[in-house]
Amino acid sequence: MTDRRIVLGPNQYGKAEVRVVKVTRDTDRHEIDDLSVTSQLRGDFAGAHTSGDNAHVIPTDTQKNTIFAFARDGVGPPEAFLLRLAEHFTSSFDWVSGGRWEAERFAWRRIEVGGAPHDHSFVRSGEETRTALVVADGDDRHVLGGLKGLTVLKTTQSGFEGFPSDRYTTLQETDDRILATEVAARWRYVGADVDYDAVYDSVRALLLEAFAARYSAALQATLFEMGSSVLEVHPEIVEIRFSMPNKHHFVVDLSAFGLDNPNEVFYAADRPYGLIEATVMREGLAAAPAAWEGIAGFC
Amino acid sequence: MTDRRIVLGPNQYGKAEVRVVKVTRDTDRHEIDDLSVTSQLRGDFAGAHTSGDNAHVIPTDTQKNTIFAFARDGVGPPEAFLLRLAEHFTSSFDWVSGGRWEAERFAWRRIEVGGAPHDHSFVRSGEETRTALVVADGDDRHVLGGLKGLTVLKTTQSGFEGFPSDRYTTLQETDDRILATEVAARWRYVGADVDYDAVYDSVRALLLEAFAARYSAALQATLFEMGSSVLEVHPEIVEIRFSMPNKHHFVVDLSAFGLDNPNEVFYAADRPYGLIEATVMREGLAAAPAAWEGIAGFC
Amino acid sequence: MTDRRIVLGPNQYGKAEVRVVKVTRDTDRHEIDDLSVTSQLRGDFAGAHTSGDNAHVIPTDTQKNTIFAFARDGVGPPEAFLLRLAEHFTSSFDWVSGGRWEAERFAWRRIEVGGAPHDHSFVRSGEETRTALVVADGDDRHVLGGLKGLTVLKTTQSGFEGFPSDRYTTLQETDDRILATEVAARWRYVGADVDYDAVYDSVRALLLEAFAARYSAALQATLFEMGSSVLEVHPEIVEIRFSMPNKHHFVVDLSAFGLDNPNEVFYAADRPYGLIEATVMREGLAAAPAAWEGIAGFC
Amino acid sequence: MTDRRIVLGPNQYGKAEVRVVKVTRDTDRHEIDDLSVTSQLRGDFAGAHTSGDNAHVIPTDTQKNTIFAFARDGVGPPEAFLLRLAEHFTSSFDWVSGGRWEAERFAWRRIEVGGAPHDHSFVRSGEETRTALVVADGDDRHVLGGLKGLTVLKTTQSGFEGFPSDRYTTLQETDDRILATEVAARWRYVGADVDYDAVYDSVRALLLEAFAARYSAALQATLFEMGSSVLEVHPEIVEIRFSMPNKHHFVVDLSAFGLDNPNEVFYAADRPYGLIEATVMREGLAAAPAAWEGIAGFC
Repeated sequence: MTDRRIVLGPNQYGKAEVRVVKVTRDTDRHEIDDLSVTSQLRGDFAGAHTSGDNAHVIPTDTQKNTIFAFARDGVGPPEAFLLRLAEHFTSSFDWVSGGRWEAERFAWRRIEVGGAPHDHSFVRSGEETRTALVVADGDDRHVLGGLKGLTVLKTTQSGFEGFPSDRYTTLQETDDRILATEVAARWRYVGADVDYDAVYDSVRALLLEAFAARYSAALQATLFEMGSSVLEVHPEIVEIRFSMPNKHHFVVDLSAFGLDNPNEVFYAADRPYGLIEATVMREGLAAAPAAWEGIAGFC
Repeated sequence: MTDRRIVLGPNQYGKAEVRVVKVTRDTDRHEIDDLSVTSQLRGDFAGAHTSGDNAHVIPTDTQKNTIFAFARDGVGPPEAFLLRLAEHFTSSFDWVSGGRWEAERFAWRRIEVGGAPHDHSFVRSGEETRTALVVADGDDRHVLGGLKGLTVLKTTQSGFEGFPSDRYTTLQETDDRILATEVAARWRYVGADVDYDAVYDSVRALLLEAFAARYSAALQATLFEMGSSVLEVHPEIVEIRFSMPNKHHFVVDLSAFGLDNPNEVFYAADRPYGLIEATVMREGLAAAPAAWEGIAGFC
Repeated sequence: MTDRRIVLGPNQYGKAEVRVVKVTRDTDRHEIDDLSVTSQLRGDFAGAHTSGDNAHVIPTDTQKNTIFAFARDGVGPPEAFLLRLAEHFTSSFDWVSGGRWEAERFAWRRIEVGGAPHDHSFVRSGEETRTALVVADGDDRHVLGGLKGLTVLKTTQSGFEGFPSDRYTTLQETDDRILATEVAARWRYVGADVDYDAVYDSVRALLLEAFAARYSAALQATLFEMGSSVLEVHPEIVEIRFSMPNKHHFVVDLSAFGLDNPNEVFYAADRPYGLIEATVMREGLAAAPAAWEGIAGFC
Repeated sequence: MTDRRIVLGPNQYGKAEVRVVKVTRDTDRHEIDDLSVTSQLRGDFAGAHTSGDNAHVIPTDTQKNTIFAFARDGVGPPEAFLLRLAEHFTSSFDWVSGGRWEAERFAWRRIEVGGAPHDHSFVRSGEETRTALVVADGDDRHVLGGLKGLTVLKTTQSGFEGFPSDRYTTLQETDDRILATEVAARWRYVGADVDYDAVYDSVRALLLEAFAARYSAALQATLFEMGSSVLEVHPEIVEIRFSMPNKHHFVVDLSAFGLDNPNEVFYAADRPYGLIEATVMREGLAAAPAAWEGIAGFC
């Protein structure tokens, strides 16, 4: 095997976590866009790896500068901003055949002063972070919306029963437990005419509502209901993937202290945790593995 | 100097970060308290250190059990819960002369389902964490409320001018910059009859409003206004201390790309950062150093 | 599109970050294995998602128990331990067609007492963490060794020249800069008769040596040399992938203070950072995409 | 109480986490100093807080510049570098009466190439970070050396017995358990003629050796032995303080699986954890509270 030649395989490179803040101040009522953007290029970069020839290596510093320069014209939905970057790099350099552009978007809410939202003062809001991803693969453009860090909990209407038992099984069945998770989700768009901001708000609301609405037979069942509720409403989304820890809350045994504990006092454990990952999709659609490569925890 | 005897100096010990979740389910509309509690005891523990005698060492495991057992009766405001723990340990063991009890409280908001807040499903809300601290020192009880992680930003109405210059000064004056910080604040209560939850909500709102309201000549000036606004309204608070990073947002120079940048595109830097720490207090009041020992970043 | 049926796509589940510490104490000279293990199963789990039927859901708690029980017989190289888990789960449950088992291994070194390594006292050593991954896909077994957090730096013999320039390029060429990165690497094994511990030590040494040895024309070139040096020595490895940030160290301009700076004083930046990801492989070998799915940052 | 005037209390400000890397390249064998430095000034800064007058506010940017400029002349031991900064700021500005300068120092080891340490290529080594702190208070200079992140573990020769029991006690006595902790220590120097680097290396070795050497009746007893071993050897150190978590390793009950577990398989828990904090000092020495203010977890 060692007689085979050693060659370069799949590769990409760029600038990561460019933190760009864009203030729109056309009027006294300012708007703010706050993003962390990562740009990575793919194409013919063999020379840089195998012969020290940098003639094709658009500097990562240039990629950073481009992000700032493009922000000058406004940012808008992160998915649209990333598509602009993808278009620029793939059309400007003929050896760039594709790439991967990713963003995290941080939410700000206006501070209330005297009961009214302030013109130019903001407070970071929410625990979750909106994510966006664009993969350019030749002429294909894959667009993923997403969020992470959305922590939810229900204090009842959750159980886990009917599971198989083997030599190593000690878990007891229950029809009343706390169910808690931190939702990370990514959904894939089709079509070009999407109002990404409006869909994001809708998806977030649908996920929360589906989590709350029904009895949970397992986190798997709840995940599927959450995904289905999104696909039912949004034709522009063809699949949605989740990575959701089961954040265990164990009932504390207080009997040694002469106390009962009817599901009132819990210990919230950190590790280990259950980890449930699944895709909810429309039947018979073509898979798009290129869209999902390199994302941790989305099988 | 080495001929002096080696002895035990100040010491404390206990259990840290006990994550207790209490669900109140007397009716179908559940309530949730979610705390991380740290208990530390002070007193006569010399034997354990110098002669391996554990007769005084109430196990940290016992302290953890006590936290869970006390939660069975309800949690309420974290400051009140910590006072109950302090009372218990100092009154139950005559060699325990004091201690330090600390809590972080995580906020949950009801999920909206069909426009109505749900009975038993919640979403973690807000970036900031409420903090509470009780120090028992003999018969004294010091109570500190607080918060951390409250990130705020104003896009204008902030400057920095009139500062001294020396050989190492290169900073330019400005009367229009982004001001951003992540507020960590602790305030000290006097008196026993405090509605801690109501005061917390009020302090948080006052801090935000003061940050937004006026032109900022420096983060120091804004900090003082924030503190003053709290002390003016709340007689039960005698001092408030802040540790606030100046989260720099630098205007990106786009001129090399043929673009202007009239304070619209910023680079948000991580490190280094300015760090402003100060106390706002009522004049002539006795200091309470015991309340503040062991807290990082509050001078 | 919304008329297509909504179905379950790819999925896996299990227990994550089971922190197991195994002490071997057959003699007075104890040995220690310290691992964080994640187990995830794949197979026929549709019922749990779509109809609330848990008959196939081997509890994540059972997976955790199995990890602890298997550790009772010894751990050994993490790759071998994960292979044992894979064999167990795929052979014990006929609806389990595969899965993914991952480990991080933490290194401990004996404390020196009086110049001799101690029998049972250890200090955590090294910044890097060894990683291992086994993917079972039907009868296939993919085994990846790896490491992360190996931070290296060279103070000279690194440059970046000959790159293309466009409207957004401001970077200057240099033939003398600091090059620093934090190596994350994963390598894929073939064959069953591998001494994983010995190979790990060898790969780590080869990576360091190749980083140091030659002038770096770019991080890409150095990456390729690092990967090649591994493949040249180890026939049991068919490909190695890297994700390496370019941890920028910028020369500080001290001229305003009347000081020169001949590459002596640097500012180490956090973000943004360059990010170089590439595969070094043997020519003409079959790709194994299943081995790499779900790993962040390895394109 | 609200009729008292609101005033400024204790305060300080500066630049935090300035990451400076100094390369000494007088010969081909380069040396590297890698520090994160924080500078905070104290003195008459009331105007900036209460009346928006910045005439005394030496910009935090200037403090950063000064750190880089001073590094041009070499860094040396972090304690000495901080003392130089303290001297500069307190002597250059008559309204600066003192301050606080803190450093973390990261360790690098030469990479071995062909069995020999390389001239200019390094690998980050060790888990622990060296810390240094200088507090200037008028003419006083308090100097603290320290370290954090030094994780140690012994697999036997540790127990916990003879502790008191109350209603909430469920812990069992043991004379054989794993003892693990992550040492954070700070020690206070007296005298000006200290070889800080040599003492640091010695203290680190003494702490490890004392941890390993004897049976541990409790973490408290081990802590005291660790501190004593330092004070016995180093007359230039007058007190040493520790903050040490008890990183619990619980024996896993394998009996349900038909397996014994003679202290071989452990579960390493994250939270909650015991927390032991204590001072070991020379008898009758004057306390120096100013040296310790604002440090978390050192009572």
